Amino acid sequence: MSRFFTKTLSALEPYTPGEQPQDMKYIKLNTNESPFEPSAKAKAVAAEHERALNLYSDPSCKLVIDKLAELYDVDPENVILGNGSDELLFFSFRAFCDEDRKAVFPDISYGFYPVFAQINKVPYNEIPLKEDLSIDTSDYKETGSTIYIANPNAPTGLTLPVSTIEELVKSHPDDVVVIDEAYVDFGGDSCVRLTKKYDNILVIQTFSKSRSLAGARIGFAIGSKVLINDMNTVKFSVNPYNINSMTMAMAYGVLCDEEQTKANCRIIAENRDNTIKALKELGFETTDSKSNFIFAKSDKISGGELYSELKKKGILVRHFDKERIREYNRISVGTKEQMDAFLKAVSEILEETSR
Amino acid sequence: MSRFFTKTLSALEPYTPGEQPQDMKYIKLNTNESPFEPSAKAKAVAAEHERALNLYSDPSCKLVIDKLAELYDVDPENVILGNGSDELLFFSFRAFCDEDRKAVFPDISYGFYPVFAQINKVPYNEIPLKEDLSIDTSDYKETGSTIYIANPNAPTGLTLPVSTIEELVKSHPDDVVVIDEAYVDFGGDSCVRLTKKYDNILVIQTFSKSRSLAGARIGFAIGSKVLINDMNTVKFSVNPYNINSMTMAMAYGVLCDEEQTKANCRIIAENRDNTIKALKELGFETTDSKSNFIFAKSDKISGGELYSELKKKGILVRHFDKERIREYNRISVGTKEQMDAFLKAVSEILEETSR
Repeated sequence: MSRFFTKTLSALEPYTPGEQPQDMKYIKLNTNESPFEPSAKAKAVAAEHERALNLYSDPSCKLVIDKLAELYDVDPENVILGNGSDELLFFSFRAFCDEDRKAVFPDISYGFYPVFAQINKVPYNEIPLKEDLSIDTSDYKETGSTIYIANPNAPTGLTLPVSTIEELVKSHPDDVVVIDEAYVDFGGDSCVRLTKKYDNILVIQTFSKSRSLAGARIGFAIGSKVLINDMNTVKFSVNPYNINSMTMAMAYGVLCDEEQTKANCRIIAENRDNTIKALKELGFETTDSKSNFIFAKSDKISGGELYSELKKKGILVRHFDKERIREYNRISVGTKEQMDAFLKAVSEILEETSR
Repeated sequence: MSRFFTKTLSALEPYTPGEQPQDMKYIKLNTNESPFEPSAKAKAVAAEHERALNLYSDPSCKLVIDKLAELYDVDPENVILGNGSDELLFFSFRAFCDEDRKAVFPDISYGFYPVFAQINKVPYNEIPLKEDLSIDTSDYKETGSTIYIANPNAPTGLTLPVSTIEELVKSHPDDVVVIDEAYVDFGGDSCVRLTKKYDNILVIQTFSKSRSLAGARIGFAIGSKVLINDMNTVKFSVNPYNINSMTMAMAYGVLCDEEQTKANCRIIAENRDNTIKALKELGFETTDSKSNFIFAKSDKISGGELYSELKKKGILVRHFDKERIREYNRISVGTKEQMDAFLKAVSEILEETSR
């Protein structure tokens, strides 16, 4: 940092995104993208909704918000869009946390939470996961904070039932509970229905995983009208035109082909379960992931070594060099062909290292 | 604001974007967009650089940054992209201002500056423009702040020479001077060359005006490597994938057709000067705007009334209900046909009100 950079953020450590090699020579199983492009139908609908790019995009994002409201059976005033769900998480830290209202989240979860806290100068508590890497909501009894729970959690893929989250929301009536559902469409159960009953739960989802639009950058949040109004207060103080016209049209297109989204999710869940089974046969231990990634370790090879050996073979997975999960790798679930190539590479590596 | 919203921002007043009616029945001269769509050549180049949307966009934004570096004769490490120049302004407030380092800007300028200060909990000083609405940099002698100057300024359209800004930058070696050049391509002189000589000047530009991409949401900043590194520290703590793949391709396409951009700017400057001449003949007083808008008032009709009467006739301009500039309207410069329609409407309104 330069001599000009604010001293109040001198300890800031930015987020490190997963490797994004632009040459595309790797089988990319490291950033939990969808292996499927948006459907032809989605693209055709998007083309019908193209707007002249010399004009500003619609800051109210009406086209997409109305459609989401219809699909999730809420009012448009219950929905806000972000330039990726990351932007919505950022807005929520700005709106609902401060020096006196800290953020609370699991010690092993989305690595961006502590960064969002730091950039917003918000103190935070990391609550350790249980020994089996699960979240125990009874560890979140303290009130007066804003609680962040990824459900399914990343990188574990483990889920909490909606009833457990409802208890948490009910027992914190004056705290906002943010449920990050980036991975919910692959087998989790959404908390969106709780937003109709409680004014203090904000559910954040993304188009980057199940909806095949990681490159278009769009996410959405659903919550009570008071919470969404607060989120809009921040949006209109940071970036009113945060969603561009092309992304708006593509997102609308994808929402008009929910059948395809559901079919893609079914394939991913099937590939995930088959890959987990095969990994177990190879001696791996995995979590019970309900997401589009697998979290696996083996006592035959260290997490770091498996990551490196896979990379040499042209397969990228994500390894977190962090206590408690250092032995694991997070493997995004791709097409059947990609998972077969991954399993073949893993078998070869195990053979080579056991020699 | 709800009971959950942080008390530390209770006085926050979000920015109000110019009206964006989605029905398109107005002649829109209110948000300083380009009246010209991106060229066929720009669109063709963009199409060649389409990327699969299911994959994340490139967080390093290499395609566009390398091209900007080439066009502006700087290194890629001197350039950063934002989701609109608004996002870059926001990043700069986060990086270079804090409770002890206030922001300083003219009292009449881009209305978002005080909002950026508030959302970042940064104190700010508004320095009054001179009686003739010009900026006098000798009013900015105090050190220890971060200085924001829009050049040309909005909504006045008035410019400062680069030599005057150089003196300001030189006399504040430990302060960052941010020059907002959103409107520089229509007749101003850019300060980009100063970024090679001084490490404390950050120049912010946008693709929304001269480059016909308001709907794609993209802006860029050029500065010393230390300043751009600081800006990246904030970007990677807020939204690493801030630019989507479609916008990246469109921006690259537009940069590959600089001839068209220059031709469009020449037409706008000509339409501006002709419209100013015609308004003066109708008894208006205008500033010497070097931007793509006109700032005009008349003692024959109040600013608010002219705005309302124009709207009734299907023409949107921007009126700021703010002391000192209440009698003015800001009129974006469109095509010759649009300006003729505007002038005809003004003539009619003046006739009707003088009856």
